[in-house]
Amino acid sequence: MENVEESTNEMEEEVGKVMEQARELQEAGAGLISMISNDEQSLRLKANSLDSSIRHLRSSITTVLSQKLLDPKLADKLEEDLQTAICIITDGDAAGFLPANAQGWYLRMFLGPISVRASRKEIQLKAKEEYNSYRDRTALMFILFPLILLILRSWIWEGCLPAFPVQLYEAWLLFLNTGLALRENILRANGSDIRPWWIYHHYFAMATALVSLTWEIKGQPNCGQKQSNSMNVARRETTGVDCQLWVLCPILFVMQGFEAYVGLLLLKTAFARVVTEWQIIFCGIILVILAVGNFINTAQTLMAKSRFKGTMKKSKSRRELY
Amino acid sequence: MENVEESTNEMEEEVGKVMEQARELQEAGAGLISMISNDEQSLRLKANSLDSSIRHLRSSITTVLSQKLLDPKLADKLEEDLQTAICIITDGDAAGFLPANAQGWYLRMFLGPISVRASRKEIQLKAKEEYNSYRDRTALMFILFPLILLILRSWIWEGCLPAFPVQLYEAWLLFLNTGLALRENILRANGSDIRPWWIYHHYFAMATALVSLTWEIKGQPNCGQKQSNSMNVARRETTGVDCQLWVLCPILFVMQGFEAYVGLLLLKTAFARVVTEWQIIFCGIILVILAVGNFINTAQTLMAKSRFKGTMKKSKSRRELY
Repeated sequence: MENVEESTNEMEEEVGKVMEQARELQEAGAGLISMISNDEQSLRLKANSLDSSIRHLRSSITTVLSQKLLDPKLADKLEEDLQTAICIITDGDAAGFLPANAQGWYLRMFLGPISVRASRKEIQLKAKEEYNSYRDRTALMFILFPLILLILRSWIWEGCLPAFPVQLYEAWLLFLNTGLALRENILRANGSDIRPWWIYHHYFAMATALVSLTWEIKGQPNCGQKQSNSMNVARRETTGVDCQLWVLCPILFVMQGFEAYVGLLLLKTAFARVVTEWQIIFCGIILVILAVGNFINTAQTLMAKSRFKGTMKKSKSRRELY
Repeated sequence: MENVEESTNEMEEEVGKVMEQARELQEAGAGLISMISNDEQSLRLKANSLDSSIRHLRSSITTVLSQKLLDPKLADKLEEDLQTAICIITDGDAAGFLPANAQGWYLRMFLGPISVRASRKEIQLKAKEEYNSYRDRTALMFILFPLILLILRSWIWEGCLPAFPVQLYEAWLLFLNTGLALRENILRANGSDIRPWWIYHHYFAMATALVSLTWEIKGQPNCGQKQSNSMNVARRETTGVDCQLWVLCPILFVMQGFEAYVGLLLLKTAFARVVTEWQIIFCGIILVILAVGNFINTAQTLMAKSRFKGTMKKSKSRRELY
């Protein structure tokens, strides 16, 4: 009987303690969250006002310079100082409090209203590094996959491409481009200045992969009708490349020319036939759009790089962060 | 000349001020972030220890009760108190500091290393609400889309289903299931106890939609070969339903039986033919797996609901939060 009383008391006491701790934890959590949200709000206001001050000063310098009220050398120095100020707030911990890029329809569509913004710079940088390594790894697969298919075609499949491995490759391309577009949208929400075109590029590539999947491949007797394979290889070479090596650029432009050529070839084929699959027209148009867009954006990147090379030398800006 | 000097001084001063502000902002940001991370860490430790205390106490109560050292009525009351303690920490702001579910391979694959965990309860709840409304909206489309196709088939297409609208529906199903699986993984990372089966269900449905897309539809002369449409209708009826209305359950079980029937029919068709498309076998197997899995999980949910109904009456637990 005494044992029962003892264990009853003990249990009641411990449960009471746990309830008390739960209430304390809840209060501490609520307190911390409200404190954080106040402090963050105030830093956000400061960051916003500093951001607009810098913009305002930059345009003032240009105006005063054009009125010949400022020595050009001094203007350069001031511009450089402002660049440094931008770097201080965008490269460090303050970056989390700068006005965020909106998350956009693509992320909302797939993820709903959840925020993908990292508050700490180190996590943003980790996301960027992971994106780069993911791109490199998949670029390798992107080349190897069709290469293996082509080798198997001539060695084992006697000049024919069976539907299954080609469709497997197309399904992988669909998954790859969906993932790349998601990651790039996430980088953008975290302050990256990635060119919107490269994201649009992946949307187009998603559409092409999807359409390719629906495109029926002729069976063994008249095999090899489908040309999507060579097309896909031509596509991705140009993705997200910032022409870090100048030697790459001529190759890039040749690839883009080839991309446009395949697109036009598809369109020509489509209009020469009496009955044509809509997929041919669709893929042809998308390829031409991709070639033109890739060319324009690669050229603009090159021009921007050479223009900003001087001012950017000293300070690594937000632009180069991603 | 005087004007030049004046504007020079003014510009230099303003740029200096901006640089100073940038440094201050950076320091304030770094300070706040390190403070937040310390405080969060300490709350996380407290939440962890409380979490294990509660688990420990629960098993102690069961032990002491089995040794007849505790009055069963008192045990019920203590169990209820512990349930209340769990609710206090899981329903409120403290929830953000409880040990998180890992984000899993699916989110890592699509999003990379970025965290989708919301620190504030209100955002977690918003994500859950949005998921529910998204599911309801798409469920409507899920029914209407094939219904419209069937109506058009008998009224306009003279008993035939053209490939394009069917493929459009399949592409939409692929997108829908990818999005649902992403959102459910996000809910799970935010503490939801959603049954893993419903997430696996969407993975299977993704695979089926992808395979359906590759399945060639015969043209106008011998149209209507492809049966995937009726199959897809049978599928989603059972997704994520917690049998909130008991009247729904018989319908659900009938649907699951129908799902298994279609799957077996496909397999029978496949093995009766000499040459068969692999897509038929694949879809048949997936349908049978889905039917069995859905049946088991619906039954388990029902049993769990009736078992916990008593203890859960007073306190809305974490289990019911999502």
